Amino acid sequence: MFRTHLVSELNPKLDGSEVKVAGWVHNVRNLGGKIFILLRDKSGIGQIVVEKGNNAYDKVINIGLESTIVVNGVVKADARAPNGVEVHAKDIEILSYARSPLPLDVTGKVKADIDTRLRERLLDLRRLEMQAVLKIQSVAVKSFRETLYKHGFVEVFTPKIIASATEGGAQLFPVLYFGKEAFLAQSPQLYKELLAGAIERVFEIAPAWRAEESDTPYHLSEFISMDVEMAFADYNDIMALIEQIIYNMINDVKRECENELKILNYTPPNVRIPIKKVSYSDAIELLKSKGVNIKFGDDIGTPELRVLYNELKEDLYFVTDWPWLSRPFYTKQKKDNPQLSESFDLIFRWLEIVSGSSRNHVKEVLENSLKVRGLNPESFEFFLKWFDYGMPPHAGFGMGLARVMLMLTGLQSVKEVVPFPRDKKRLTP
Amino acid sequence: MFRTHLVSELNPKLDGSEVKVAGWVHNVRNLGGKIFILLRDKSGIGQIVVEKGNNAYDKVINIGLESTIVVNGVVKADARAPNGVEVHAKDIEILSYARSPLPLDVTGKVKADIDTRLRERLLDLRRLEMQAVLKIQSVAVKSFRETLYKHGFVEVFTPKIIASATEGGAQLFPVLYFGKEAFLAQSPQLYKELLAGAIERVFEIAPAWRAEESDTPYHLSEFISMDVEMAFADYNDIMALIEQIIYNMINDVKRECENELKILNYTPPNVRIPIKKVSYSDAIELLKSKGVNIKFGDDIGTPELRVLYNELKEDLYFVTDWPWLSRPFYTKQKKDNPQLSESFDLIFRWLEIVSGSSRNHVKEVLENSLKVRGLNPESFEFFLKWFDYGMPPHAGFGMGLARVMLMLTGLQSVKEVVPFPRDKKRLTP
Repeated sequence: MFRTHLVSELNPKLDGSEVKVAGWVHNVRNLGGKIFILLRDKSGIGQIVVEKGNNAYDKVINIGLESTIVVNGVVKADARAPNGVEVHAKDIEILSYARSPLPLDVTGKVKADIDTRLRERLLDLRRLEMQAVLKIQSVAVKSFRETLYKHGFVEVFTPKIIASATEGGAQLFPVLYFGKEAFLAQSPQLYKELLAGAIERVFEIAPAWRAEESDTPYHLSEFISMDVEMAFADYNDIMALIEQIIYNMINDVKRECENELKILNYTPPNVRIPIKKVSYSDAIELLKSKGVNIKFGDDIGTPELRVLYNELKEDLYFVTDWPWLSRPFYTKQKKDNPQLSESFDLIFRWLEIVSGSSRNHVKEVLENSLKVRGLNPESFEFFLKWFDYGMPPHAGFGMGLARVMLMLTGLQSVKEVVPFPRDKKRLTP
Repeated sequence: MFRTHLVSELNPKLDGSEVKVAGWVHNVRNLGGKIFILLRDKSGIGQIVVEKGNNAYDKVINIGLESTIVVNGVVKADARAPNGVEVHAKDIEILSYARSPLPLDVTGKVKADIDTRLRERLLDLRRLEMQAVLKIQSVAVKSFRETLYKHGFVEVFTPKIIASATEGGAQLFPVLYFGKEAFLAQSPQLYKELLAGAIERVFEIAPAWRAEESDTPYHLSEFISMDVEMAFADYNDIMALIEQIIYNMINDVKRECENELKILNYTPPNVRIPIKKVSYSDAIELLKSKGVNIKFGDDIGTPELRVLYNELKEDLYFVTDWPWLSRPFYTKQKKDNPQLSESFDLIFRWLEIVSGSSRNHVKEVLENSLKVRGLNPESFEFFLKWFDYGMPPHAGFGMGLARVMLMLTGLQSVKEVVPFPRDKKRLTP
C-alpha cells in the first residue's frame, strides 16, 4: 500500500497520527535546517517537512521536481500550511527520480506555448489547470449520460471501420482492412439511425474522424462525438432534449467541479430554458441588416456567428430550419417549404457545438436526396434496404465533446482540451 | 407528438381514456369482424383492436408486419390482453410500410442462423432477445463507470490513430494519415499509462482493433475495451477493484434488467468475494495432474481453461503470476522471481474476460524488456521519455465488453452480442 491518505484528506484532527502519503514533488524549499516539500497527488497539494538529521533529509536534498515519493510521517496541525496541516517525515521512499531541469514547468509559473505543451504533454497534463479540465470533462460526459438514461436511452457502440462514406467521400481516412479498402467512420450517423429503428432511443460517445486540412482552434482529425438518435420524434423533441442535457451538464459541472472551475478562474454560462431559437432565414436577414455580405443558401460561419452573437446577446441559441441542400442527405425537408429542412445547430456564442435534425424515413425520398447531392444510392444500399422494413420517423443530433469543453472551461482551443490531439501535423505523442 | 403513452404504461386504471401509442406491427390476427394488432414499442408489446367499419380497418387489413403506425384510441380494460388492457382504435396513421415477407422473423418463432441474423441485422435487433442484450449492455457499462467514479477515477479519451505499435507490429490495421502510414490502436495501453502518470486514476471505454485472422466465438477485429489504469497501485489493488466492479455489474444487471434476463431465460453467475485466485504455476501443475500436455511457459488456452474450470468449479477465478516473457513488455516482474510477473487474467468459466498487471515504471527496465521481446526502444520513444519525469508505480487492466456480455446474457458468441460485428469477412452492415 502506497498511502493511507490522500493529501486533501489530512486535517488538523489527525494531529499526532502516523500517515503515509504518496505523490509528486511539486516544489521544494530548503531552509537549511528544514526542507519543505509540496507533495502533489490527485487530490491536491500538501506540505511535508523534513528535518535535518532525519535520514530522509539526504534523500531529498537534491531531488528533482516531479519525482514520485512515499512519505511516512506524523501529522502536525499548523495554520500556515495547506489544509492547516503538515506531515513531518519520518522516512521517505523515492519511487522514481525525475530528471532536471524539466522541459515544462508543472507549477505553471513559467508559461509555455501550445506546441511546447503538446510536446511535453505528460508534464502539461499534471498542471492543476489540465487536471481540472480532465475532471470537468469526466463530469460532463457523466451528466450527458445521466440525462439520457432518465429518458430511457440505451448506450450503444457502433462500428468505426466502415465500407463506405456517410456523407460523401471527402475527408475520410482510408484503412487497409484485410487487404480491402475501408474507412474510418466520420460519424455513427447511419448506424445510430438503424439502432433507433430497432430500439428507439440510443446514444453513443465515441471517436470519429475527419481529415481536416485546416489548422483551426475548433477542428481535430480525431474527435469525440456525443451522438443521440430517437425514434418517433422530430427535431423539436430533440431540441427540448438538448436543453435538458445542456442545462444539467452545466449545472452538474458547476456543482461537482467548484474547485476545478476556481483553478481555471472561469464560470460556464447560465442556461435559460427555453434556449432562444432563431431561424436560419431570420439570421440571414439580421446579418444582412448589419451589413454582412451573405445570402440565402450560404453557410453561417464563425465570423457571421460573431455578428449574430453580438446582436442576440445570448450565450446559447439554436439556429433552425437550414436550407435543405446545405444539410446532409438524411435530413428531412420541411413540409411547408421543401427548400428548408427540419434542422438546427446549437451555438455557444459563435461556436457550433451541436448539429441535429429530423431524418428522412422514406426510402424513395432518401434515394432522391442522395442523387441530388451527387451521391450514389448503390453505395448506401446497406443502409437504404432497411427503409423497406418499417423505419419509424426519427431525429437526432451530434455534439462535439471538445467544443462543449470550451464552453465548460473557458479554454480557447480544442487542442488544449484533448490530451493527445490529432491534426495534420500531430500523430504523437 | 407521436404518442401519449408507451404501451407498457397502459393499465386498467386508464379504462375509458383516449391515448395515442406508436410502434411496430409485431403481429396481426384478423378475426373477420375485428383485427387484433400486437403493437411493439421500446417498452414492450400491447394489444390494439380495430373494429370492422372503422376507417382504420381498411388501412391495416393488409399491413405488413414491422410497419410503423400511430394509433389513436380508447383504453379498455380486458383481463385477457397484455397488461390487462386493449386500445380500441379510433384512427390509425401509417408511418412507414414494411415489405412482406420479412427476410427474418422478428417474433422469433422461426429461428435463423447467425449469418442470416447478421445480414438482416436491423430486424434481428428488433427481436426481444436482442433488445434485452442491448439494454443489459447499457446497464453493464453504466455500472462499470459508477464503481470507478466512486473510487475517484476520471473518464478519459485516448487517441486511436497512433504512430507505432503498442505490443509489437502484428495484427495492426494500417491507416493512411495525411499521406503517412499510421495504425489503429490495439489498446489504449501506453496512453492510459501516461494519463495515470498525470492524474493517477483513469478509465476509458472505447473501440480497439486487432486484425484477427481466426474466426472464433470470442474474437472480433473491432471490439470495445474497458480500460483502467491506476497510479500508486499494484496488481493486488487492481484485482480488488475488479472484484467490486464485477460484483456491482452483475448485481446491477440482475436488479435493473430482471425482465431482460427473463426474456433471455438466463441468470448471470453469483460473485463471491474474494474471487478465487490460482497462480499460473499451480494451474499448470493441476492441469498436468489431469493429464494435460502442458509445461511452464505455455499459454493456458480455452481447452485447458475448460479443464481448469471443471476442477475449480468456480464461475469466476483469477489466474495470477504469469511467466514474465508471455506478457507484454510493460508488465512488471515479480521481485522474488523475475521469471514471473505481477499479472493476472480473470476467467469466466473458460473465457478470459480481463487481463491486467502491475506495470514497469523504470525506464531502463522497460528498454530492456522491449529488447528481450525483439522490439525496438526507439519506436517507443514517445512513451519512454516520460519515464525520465517521475512516472509513479502503476497498475491496470483491460476488460473485453463483448466477452463480459457473454457472462451477463448467456449468449455463446461475441458476434451475436455486437450489433454490427467486424471480422475478416464482415465489413457491412
